[in-house]
Amino acid sequence: MGKELSPISVGVDIGGTNIKIGIVEGASRLTASAVIPTVPDTTAKKTVEDMSRAILCLLAERGLQPAQCAGIGMGIPGTIDKRAGVVRYSNNLQWEDIPIVERMKEYFSLPVQAANDADCAALGELAAGAGKGFQNMIMITLGTGVGGGIILNGKLFSGACAGGSELGHMVIVENGAPCTCGRAGCLEAYVSATALKRIAKQKTGRDMLPEQIFDGAKNDDMALRGIVEDYIKKLGTGIVNMANIFRPQLILLGGGLCAQGETLLRPLRTMVEKECFGGVHGELPEVKTAVLGNQAGMLGAANLLQA
Amino acid sequence: MGKELSPISVGVDIGGTNIKIGIVEGASRLTASAVIPTVPDTTAKKTVEDMSRAILCLLAERGLQPAQCAGIGMGIPGTIDKRAGVVRYSNNLQWEDIPIVERMKEYFSLPVQAANDADCAALGELAAGAGKGFQNMIMITLGTGVGGGIILNGKLFSGACAGGSELGHMVIVENGAPCTCGRAGCLEAYVSATALKRIAKQKTGRDMLPEQIFDGAKNDDMALRGIVEDYIKKLGTGIVNMANIFRPQLILLGGGLCAQGETLLRPLRTMVEKECFGGVHGELPEVKTAVLGNQAGMLGAANLLQA
Repeated sequence: MGKELSPISVGVDIGGTNIKIGIVEGASRLTASAVIPTVPDTTAKKTVEDMSRAILCLLAERGLQPAQCAGIGMGIPGTIDKRAGVVRYSNNLQWEDIPIVERMKEYFSLPVQAANDADCAALGELAAGAGKGFQNMIMITLGTGVGGGIILNGKLFSGACAGGSELGHMVIVENGAPCTCGRAGCLEAYVSATALKRIAKQKTGRDMLPEQIFDGAKNDDMALRGIVEDYIKKLGTGIVNMANIFRPQLILLGGGLCAQGETLLRPLRTMVEKECFGGVHGELPEVKTAVLGNQAGMLGAANLLQA
Repeated sequence: MGKELSPISVGVDIGGTNIKIGIVEGASRLTASAVIPTVPDTTAKKTVEDMSRAILCLLAERGLQPAQCAGIGMGIPGTIDKRAGVVRYSNNLQWEDIPIVERMKEYFSLPVQAANDADCAALGELAAGAGKGFQNMIMITLGTGVGGGIILNGKLFSGACAGGSELGHMVIVENGAPCTCGRAGCLEAYVSATALKRIAKQKTGRDMLPEQIFDGAKNDDMALRGIVEDYIKKLGTGIVNMANIFRPQLILLGGGLCAQGETLLRPLRTMVEKECFGGVHGELPEVKTAVLGNQAGMLGAANLLQA
């Protein structure tokens, strides 16, 4: 089992719909996992209680005691003060100023770390996925919102002050579409899955899933093709902005939309080559899709203990 | 004189018009300086020769031998590969792939470092100016172009790969004004001094300096007032984007335009408070103007030796 060789840690990915709990061996091996629902309109106290019980159960199933673990890492959607271990604000969970690390320590005498969920996904891909071997990467998660995870010199960069980097809240279209953050024209207002569905509904009157929109575009529905082309152009603008700012080696796309693979990647790579500052004089980043899917968050959360 | 206590280094700020050479004691005390013109249409070899002679003269005037210096730091406009010590491309100097550190070492048996000039200005303000005491700041230099210097955890962040971070080349207006980098709608295309003059000329037909444009706006020239308001709005959009990405403690404005002081700062602070992600849940950056003016580049270049 190699238990003596690799430390075991618990990685928790708290989402608006469910909570995924994983037991991770070393940096990259998910050996067991469990999922419990996120109960809406409940207190943080109750959620912590449910989550702790589920962690203990999963460990017990594997014949493990908490004391055999290196610690518990948690990925949480929202504004997380990583140093203080406090959830400043999570819209999805309706949490505000919850000292989550302290609460978890009521159940476990272990090191506990919490970070933004998109940051955890990036750490997971770095440790065990498409980011393996890279030292500098930006992961953009295209989901309900647009999350970002920044890895610099092999370490998570969460922004200098508390709050965490918000790559999705970069205005790319002045006076553009209203964004949930209160500004207008943010990247998120164009390239989240939510935004794509909203734009398709506005332009065609139809309620469609992102994959239906992409399929329609491939099958020569001209309205949908225009929507997809504009989607990719906006995403490319955001990606080139990030490439000019961070000069990463890799830009990784995550979230459900990354299933579109080369349909997204091919035009995005062309934009990167054509638009990045300095062109041939610079070093252009690779553009790839994430490979770990739902597991990235748990794996990355477990890796918080080593970060 | 404290010569035994503080190391002495040489800081060089190479510009398109002139080359400033400073002798710096410790991190922050400029004890002597000299300026030589940048000769247009000359070779890099000749420029290095002139510059080296001027450094030797300045040291001799102060009764110093090169061997008494900790090293020579240089700030250069353009795309600098800091690790390799190579100027990949400088539009202002018309240099391409010049191994500047190697060339300087033909004249000096000292450590030599080269970095982007805006990066050096940021380092200078950090060591001896408005950034003193801060660990995390972004400096935006509003000049012929828009330069950026990023300080994270007290250290210069120049982008992960060679090339350096290009904060000015972030698209904020999709399909906007053409930018020198080849894209359309970059921050630089709206908020450099060059852009401000171009926009004023387009809208009023008059050739004006930035200070004339700001003065006119203060004196109720409605056309100029509109231009200044839009200038500040665009700059604020860029600043909030950067605040959301880096979450710095301080955003510092440099370049000639920062002489406008509170005229710029007051509305920018309002935008930061209103638009930064998370609002009161986050920590908002301070917004200030640089204080070292022309000296920042030399001081920062000298600090490269300690970085």
